[in-house]
Amino acid sequence: MDNSYLNINDIQKIVSKDLNYVNDIIIDNIGNEIPLINDLSKHILASGGKRIRPIITLLTSSICNYSGKNHLPLAACVEFIHTATLLHDDVIDGNKTSILVGDFLFARAFELMVKNGSKKILKILSKASSTIAQGEVLQLTTINDCNTTKELYMKIIKNKTASLFSAAAEISAVLSNEEHHIQKSLKIYGEKLGIAFQLVDDVLDYAGTASLDKKIGDDFREGKMTLPVIISVEKSTPEEKNFWKRTIENLDQSSNDLNKAIELINKYNGINATLNIAKEYSLEAIKSLEIFPQSKSKLALESLAFIAINRKK
Amino acid sequence: MDNSYLNINDIQKIVSKDLNYVNDIIIDNIGNEIPLINDLSKHILASGGKRIRPIITLLTSSICNYSGKNHLPLAACVEFIHTATLLHDDVIDGNKTSILVGDFLFARAFELMVKNGSKKILKILSKASSTIAQGEVLQLTTINDCNTTKELYMKIIKNKTASLFSAAAEISAVLSNEEHHIQKSLKIYGEKLGIAFQLVDDVLDYAGTASLDKKIGDDFREGKMTLPVIISVEKSTPEEKNFWKRTIENLDQSSNDLNKAIELINKYNGINATLNIAKEYSLEAIKSLEIFPQSKSKLALESLAFIAINRKK
Repeated sequence: MDNSYLNINDIQKIVSKDLNYVNDIIIDNIGNEIPLINDLSKHILASGGKRIRPIITLLTSSICNYSGKNHLPLAACVEFIHTATLLHDDVIDGNKTSILVGDFLFARAFELMVKNGSKKILKILSKASSTIAQGEVLQLTTINDCNTTKELYMKIIKNKTASLFSAAAEISAVLSNEEHHIQKSLKIYGEKLGIAFQLVDDVLDYAGTASLDKKIGDDFREGKMTLPVIISVEKSTPEEKNFWKRTIENLDQSSNDLNKAIELINKYNGINATLNIAKEYSLEAIKSLEIFPQSKSKLALESLAFIAINRKK
Repeated sequence: MDNSYLNINDIQKIVSKDLNYVNDIIIDNIGNEIPLINDLSKHILASGGKRIRPIITLLTSSICNYSGKNHLPLAACVEFIHTATLLHDDVIDGNKTSILVGDFLFARAFELMVKNGSKKILKILSKASSTIAQGEVLQLTTINDCNTTKELYMKIIKNKTASLFSAAAEISAVLSNEEHHIQKSLKIYGEKLGIAFQLVDDVLDYAGTASLDKKIGDDFREGKMTLPVIISVEKSTPEEKNFWKRTIENLDQSSNDLNKAIELINKYNGINATLNIAKEYSLEAIKSLEIFPQSKSKLALESLAFIAINRKK
């Protein structure tokens, strides 16, 4: 090994045109409407990275005389995988096993879909995965924020919960080569069901039956802004608003505060109002199955929508 | 809505045959050689989950009269995505943003590859992702364990680092429709380069130049078993072994311990021995490019292998 080798700046120069495209693709694909994703990923993807991995893809494409353009987004993809790993690797604490095993399951899910799904199915499931993550980040931005609106809340649960329900139903119609309107009906079924399901989940955190695997009040203790609270905060007196600020925004909670919160939620009908919305979504889910002939499986799907809003835990 | 609806047990019965297949696929796909992954994911996937999402895929496939078998692994895939989300959602602390933005980038990477890659490229990149996660989990099991072997260490860095380097290079040959032996050469190039790269990274944590974005001694403080330490521990006297046990296994460290560790590593030639192995891998990486005619890009790829082992940070 001697001095005839190039240094990293020379190497970057050789691929600079392609590397600029890759950087543009990277920016385009993190430039979404959620500032927290934007800021953090831009910070990490922009700062100091030498782009070794995408450069490898660019240079190897070049020695293979590749004449297409697909190496550019794929090089960006490789950098995304690397950056995701970096972000998760930087977490130093006892949660690391959960994070890494979660990553493994996530990656294994992709292996399974690649093996068994068509391009369209892959598109649906990979989009659902990124929508879930966006919903989760969006939810994070509303934690401890008493001004969270109902509209934002609905968007969050649509993203974080309903997108996977929706994908789970839609892919069946795609697998079966059903016509577009059938695909759409099942997609809507899953979406409406998922929203109903999450609304009731959020109700049960204040009004459910506690059991071994389900505690009451988790959302309250974390300062999550769910619909029962949003409804109550909206109608609260100034004094009651101070209660919500102290407990949800400042997380300054004492032992009786959960009961007080439940009281306030009930005072303003937060549980029933949320359940009524859930019922509407459940009925819409059932309605979207109308185009299918009656069958045991159809009854089961309708029943899921019924169970979603009638469960106690 | 009335009482003609089925309950969840009835619904599970309707799809029980398919659901058993799905459960088998789930078990098959987490049954890998790493006990930590096995235990945690089995625990979560086996316990209490009502499998609502996969049941949706099974029932909707049924009302579409789907006659194939692909709905089964895809239903498992949906449950994997859900479980991964659950695992990450359970992390309660300040790291949550990093975790969720990492998930978003990971999912976005899959969207990018689905849009731009062939089935074979998707297979390579999704496999690389799950291999990375396996390597990271494997690394977690060796933290604070002075008995970690060189073989296990090599396996870890091959998985967690070299797999993505390897995929980054291999996909170019696949994109370019190169013959199998060319694909293999680039795959090997990436793998050898990645191993050399990580070996030197692990050396630099004890022997590198500290800078703003790079501290020395991070691995030591975390109790990571990297090759310089493994080599030194192997040759240590009983008294020196006690030092490693105290600092690496018990993380009982005081301010001068990093210097003492560096001293012990140098006493047993841990830095140079590791660098020599890195050099071998670097040469193998360069050798695997022999089949390509000389070009600027080839020189750049060779140079990357040279830089990997000659960098100081």
